[in-house]
Amino acid sequence: MSQFIVIEGLEGAGKSTVQGHVVDWLESKGLTVLRTREPGGTPLAEKMRSLVKEVHEEPLTMEAELLLMYAARVQLVKGCIQPALAANTWVVGDRHDWSSLAYQGGGRGIDVALISQIKQAVLGDFTPNLVLYLDIDPAQGLARARIRGELDRIEQEQLSFFERTRAGYLALADNNPDCEIIDASQSEAEVKAAVLACLERRLCTLG
Amino acid sequence: MSQFIVIEGLEGAGKSTVQGHVVDWLESKGLTVLRTREPGGTPLAEKMRSLVKEVHEEPLTMEAELLLMYAARVQLVKGCIQPALAANTWVVGDRHDWSSLAYQGGGRGIDVALISQIKQAVLGDFTPNLVLYLDIDPAQGLARARIRGELDRIEQEQLSFFERTRAGYLALADNNPDCEIIDASQSEAEVKAAVLACLERRLCTLG
Repeated sequence: MSQFIVIEGLEGAGKSTVQGHVVDWLESKGLTVLRTREPGGTPLAEKMRSLVKEVHEEPLTMEAELLLMYAARVQLVKGCIQPALAANTWVVGDRHDWSSLAYQGGGRGIDVALISQIKQAVLGDFTPNLVLYLDIDPAQGLARARIRGELDRIEQEQLSFFERTRAGYLALADNNPDCEIIDASQSEAEVKAAVLACLERRLCTLG
Repeated sequence: MSQFIVIEGLEGAGKSTVQGHVVDWLESKGLTVLRTREPGGTPLAEKMRSLVKEVHEEPLTMEAELLLMYAARVQLVKGCIQPALAANTWVVGDRHDWSSLAYQGGGRGIDVALISQIKQAVLGDFTPNLVLYLDIDPAQGLARARIRGELDRIEQEQLSFFERTRAGYLALADNNPDCEIIDASQSEAEVKAAVLACLERRLCTLG
């Protein structure tokens, strides 16, 4: 049966590169794979993404930011991810629910119980089969992200915001049987090796 | 102390006309008044409104629609309505929270308890001081709205959708001490007289 695998982590952790490795690995097993990113992934969800990511003159309230994230997420889940899984397509996501818990919860300080309530209200028990959390020191990650280009509205936050976000991620990852923590401070080759080893171990029955 | 007065009702019930009467009446008492509309009312909330109102090729899921409504609402409440009330400005809104309960709850059939949960999560106990609900038969209202021009995505729903929405409104209005039900099937002059009589009765201490 197809699964939903999510790559999570801070800016510059290397999520989209790792997403590529996971997609390649699954395809090498003869599986059909859908690649998604959040927020976004459908034309309407991408419009919601723009509202969240762009720098506006009017400050976006943190509550509206949270609701826009979930509006984009539910649009993607109901419109693409669930239909794909039902058609036996594997789905590999660049970010999903943990991003809201880590960024809006840990980073912005919105009560995590309240975020979970919204999640539960619109997505019920839908959850990834596996989360690969790419752990990185925020200073190192942001330095990498800066090389990549201009920072968006959220990426312009203070370092302390990302430290709280990382703590949020680690609280979710710790002792979670559906999560693998990958040390993303390593070289690209080392991260790739760690990811592939983890896929082999987790999904060995696919071979 | 300033108050938040909301006009609610179906398409073609005459909300914006009544909003004008309420604003005029309050201003005639020497009060400062802010006029709002939902969804929308700030540049960012208007962008969220467009996502909800425009007809898109991709169907907007009802959960995303609900979250966009609340994203726009919280943006307006925190950015405009609450600051205005704090500065002793009266606020007269064309639609607010009851629209989500009536349209997404009654009309679309989303569990009202779940909508209330989202509302509570982002807006807490914030609620209008007075709701003027303009009750109208959906067929009559839609006929009026059609004269006004092209119908948007939500206005294109079936009549039965608006009948469920009206039932949702009536369930909210019934026996609610903070609501006045106005018979909007009357002539414009009769509706205006009913609204003014209600304001005089409710807010007589302002004179």
